[in-house]
Amino acid sequence: MCHDGVMAVRTPLPIRPTGADSCCSPLTGGILDVEAAGHLAQAFKALGDPARVRLLSLIAASASGEACICDLTQPVGLSQPTVSHHMRLLVEAGLVTREQRGKWAYYAVVPETFRQLSSALNLD
Amino acid sequence: MCHDGVMAVRTPLPIRPTGADSCCSPLTGGILDVEAAGHLAQAFKALGDPARVRLLSLIAASASGEACICDLTQPVGLSQPTVSHHMRLLVEAGLVTREQRGKWAYYAVVPETFRQLSSALNLD
Repeated sequence: MCHDGVMAVRTPLPIRPTGADSCCSPLTGGILDVEAAGHLAQAFKALGDPARVRLLSLIAASASGEACICDLTQPVGLSQPTVSHHMRLLVEAGLVTREQRGKWAYYAVVPETFRQLSSALNLD
Repeated sequence: MCHDGVMAVRTPLPIRPTGADSCCSPLTGGILDVEAAGHLAQAFKALGDPARVRLLSLIAASASGEACICDLTQPVGLSQPTVSHHMRLLVEAGLVTREQRGKWAYYAVVPETFRQLSSALNLD
């Protein structure tokens, strides 16, 4: 759904198979195409905020791998509408899923997205 | 210099040693502190732009591990001032270093920063 874009990222950042038309410079053989770069950038942009990084760290560290929004507001010291806004951006970037259960929304990290982003930053 | 902030990030995203005052919820034991989250977010924000992701992919894929700005503009289809602007943000985030050689600036990726960011996103 919302995170199809990020989930489709499969190419590590520095590695881009060169086509037959790449000839001379190793630089031009290595550039990521616009679409792949866009997907990666969208996810990194969502991570580019201290509150969202802290919210993710909370969820990722929870024993169940998920967290109710009711448990997220106090540790980060933000209002529920603000936390909801941050969580919506994280859902849209494919970093977490959201499930409504009665009154509360529950969020869980999407391990595959984290694997892809971690791999994209792996220069080895 | 500019990248001391990011270089100081040593704590993987989901892992935050719990103090004696953490008692009940595994969530509150897992939150990254404000400073560490800020450093990570600064680096991720710099990565949150498709042009910068493409520029990094170019540099990272170069045989020498570095690239002259004179070789970066054409592949991304942007003017040199625009590329210089993007590169400045990447330098400030500690993702690349910049070295002036005569007329041209040369950029190289900072492997340690990439390792730290990749590790921060590793949930395993």
